[in-house]
Amino acid sequence: MDALKGRILREGRVRPGNILKVDSFLNHQIDVAFLQEIGEEFHRIFSGRPITKILTIESSGIAVACMTAQSFGVPVVFAKKAQTKNLDGSLYRSIVRSYTYGKIYDVVLSRRFLGPEDHVLIVDDFLANGCAAEGLIDIIGQAGASLEGVGIVIEKGFQEGGKMLREKGVNLHSLAIIESMTDNTVVFREE
Amino acid sequence: MDALKGRILREGRVRPGNILKVDSFLNHQIDVAFLQEIGEEFHRIFSGRPITKILTIESSGIAVACMTAQSFGVPVVFAKKAQTKNLDGSLYRSIVRSYTYGKIYDVVLSRRFLGPEDHVLIVDDFLANGCAAEGLIDIIGQAGASLEGVGIVIEKGFQEGGKMLREKGVNLHSLAIIESMTDNTVVFREE
Repeated sequence: MDALKGRILREGRVRPGNILKVDSFLNHQIDVAFLQEIGEEFHRIFSGRPITKILTIESSGIAVACMTAQSFGVPVVFAKKAQTKNLDGSLYRSIVRSYTYGKIYDVVLSRRFLGPEDHVLIVDDFLANGCAAEGLIDIIGQAGASLEGVGIVIEKGFQEGGKMLREKGVNLHSLAIIESMTDNTVVFREE
Repeated sequence: MDALKGRILREGRVRPGNILKVDSFLNHQIDVAFLQEIGEEFHRIFSGRPITKILTIESSGIAVACMTAQSFGVPVVFAKKAQTKNLDGSLYRSIVRSYTYGKIYDVVLSRRFLGPEDHVLIVDDFLANGCAAEGLIDIIGQAGASLEGVGIVIEKGFQEGGKMLREKGVNLHSLAIIESMTDNTVVFREE
């Protein structure tokens, strides 16, 4: 998506530890009109699929998910990072490792909002190691729902998440794939 | 807002500890089309103000903020619950007490995204004790920005947040104010 690559080149800032800050439009300040274009692009890519729910994980996936859901005319469901133990059996639960924050946490989703009748599109702002996507795919499996695709705004192509998901046969589309980045340059993968 | 009150009566579930679960449409599953109506209602209420930014706090305020920002044609900025200490001086920082989770946490916002030129509408899904709103108002003060109003989807009128903000002269509008609730009933404040 050229408009996205342009904004990454103009506004992105590379930080130590393979961090790309795009917080001027994607995940701290949010350019809602631009995210609407991103949602429309995901709709073009995945519109052949019978999608009933957009699934993401708090927090930074929520805005992308809302603007995508608006294009599809379906609800969002977002998985929550568990703060407390809930043992009442009403939740799907998976485990996600965060390399950014160096910890492992539970993600949970109420069983009321995902079931065997659902056809799910996962969306998120970033794909790096793929741990968050794997957790969401695990939850979709627990629900007996169908995974129709994964839509990512920015994929770090030099980390293993994208390769791992594609090798599993996941219908993954990333709007921008970064091949490499240094302090001064961001290089995108040719498509 | 009658459509909102109807959904609270039909779908809300009261839980011990003054918890009202409306997670079927507001803050776990998200009915994006309905949140668009909520955003348009906030626009009707606050459209006389020269608003440049919609401010909220992660996570459950983000969806409401995005749909409200769409009506105003301005960006969202969301404050983050701090996970790590950042001592580089580039952040506004305030402290919020969460009664739900029984803890105190820092909220932070990059100085790049709020300044003296900004006219800010705060939105959130719930108002109870008002601690989150106070933290955001504190950050607006640090930025030298102007607080134009606070838009709340559901106010718990039996807790002190709304009274406290109105006594301070804050331009607060809540789309539904709950006067009282028990296991079986939710009673709204007459307006």
